[in-house]
Amino acid sequence: MTVSDQHLQLYELGGLNDIRYSQFSWRTRMALAHKGLKFDTIPVRVSDKAVIAFSNQTKVPILKIGDHVIFDSWTIAEYLEDTYAYRPSLFGGPIGHALTRFINTMVDRQLVPKAAMMLMRDVLDIVDEDDAAHMRTSMEKAFRKNLEEMAAQRDNDVIEFRRMLDPIRATFRGQPYLCGTEPAYADYILFSVFQWARLVSPFELLKADDLIAAWRERMLDLFGGMARQQQARAAVLEKAS
Amino acid sequence: MTVSDQHLQLYELGGLNDIRYSQFSWRTRMALAHKGLKFDTIPVRVSDKAVIAFSNQTKVPILKIGDHVIFDSWTIAEYLEDTYAYRPSLFGGPIGHALTRFINTMVDRQLVPKAAMMLMRDVLDIVDEDDAAHMRTSMEKAFRKNLEEMAAQRDNDVIEFRRMLDPIRATFRGQPYLCGTEPAYADYILFSVFQWARLVSPFELLKADDLIAAWRERMLDLFGGMARQQQARAAVLEKAS
Repeated sequence: MTVSDQHLQLYELGGLNDIRYSQFSWRTRMALAHKGLKFDTIPVRVSDKAVIAFSNQTKVPILKIGDHVIFDSWTIAEYLEDTYAYRPSLFGGPIGHALTRFINTMVDRQLVPKAAMMLMRDVLDIVDEDDAAHMRTSMEKAFRKNLEEMAAQRDNDVIEFRRMLDPIRATFRGQPYLCGTEPAYADYILFSVFQWARLVSPFELLKADDLIAAWRERMLDLFGGMARQQQARAAVLEKAS
Repeated sequence: MTVSDQHLQLYELGGLNDIRYSQFSWRTRMALAHKGLKFDTIPVRVSDKAVIAFSNQTKVPILKIGDHVIFDSWTIAEYLEDTYAYRPSLFGGPIGHALTRFINTMVDRQLVPKAAMMLMRDVLDIVDEDDAAHMRTSMEKAFRKNLEEMAAQRDNDVIEFRRMLDPIRATFRGQPYLCGTEPAYADYILFSVFQWARLVSPFELLKADDLIAAWRERMLDLFGGMARQQQARAAVLEKAS
């Protein structure tokens, strides 16, 4: 049996109406699609992780390939790159790999916390009661602030968030993707923040004429519109009103 | 005649005691050394650029290879990568190239202006009178502030500068260079800011126990200690006192 015959299962956070909102899982989803791999997804609740007990892990995403279990989105990306080396590259060699790790670190340490402060309150509305209670406790502990209080500041915070994106925006003047003429894993890392935002909140992180917004559209189009198939929170709310 | 037989001349800013302090030129110097190329350097004064009149340019660095003239440090790096493709790679392929362009943009838009605000006053002391007057005028116009005023704030500004470096610092927990196990052009870009700072000012941008300070030492050791051969401003002042 070759690796490509094996059954790939992605365990990831699932919310109400089966929404798959985890940004880290979106990194893995895009990486799997980039490698041309088929996979099943299994939803996991934040407050009940019995379904991933087999892994001895408490966090998702977890990728199960046959009997092999890999966890942490970055480790999964490295595993996919090594295991499916004959498929399109996620990193483009050692230097690309190293610089992508920097992008991963930068996004996780700068953009993810800033986006979480603005939008975490809205996540409570797309998960069940137990998950919402669990998230509120852990997030308010992490940020030492009330979620509503943080959300109330977001019209101001988004200005700083957009300012943090300045070097990325300027880069898009010279190339359509972070990784050049074609997207690769560094693009998926950055995209995961915007896909998460799109799924959990109607709040718009970008101005309409932002070059990053145009890039986001290109990302949503990839792999037959894979990411676009998950309905944006803004559209859900519009329909309901 | 092959390209490697040709005479390489690097025109770059020169100060008092023939100090070569241009950060953009240091990017090119390190790139040339990375490619194993020998080159001569020709100093250019900010206030008298007659020596580069041949190039129809007003800015350095300029690289002259035989009759061919290349300017702008980024363009020079791309030119070297293409022309000396059989030598060690600066970018490591298309994805590394694209991500290095992002690093170049990020350093130029975030770190360079911040470092300039803190240290530009000190540059006046290492150039001749005419250059100093020229720089003061252009910098105070660009920043809309007096250089002494900006320097007076640097004990505070350096805290923000160090905070901006957080994702780079965290990356060095997992790898010795931005480009992985070996340095490449993205490292030279970042290093150029610290080499410039080291040459123009006794003010220390990093704490002694900063992982970035340890990386800087490794960078100073490269190519037989090429960058270390230019004496640090702190050492010059200590000797004089």
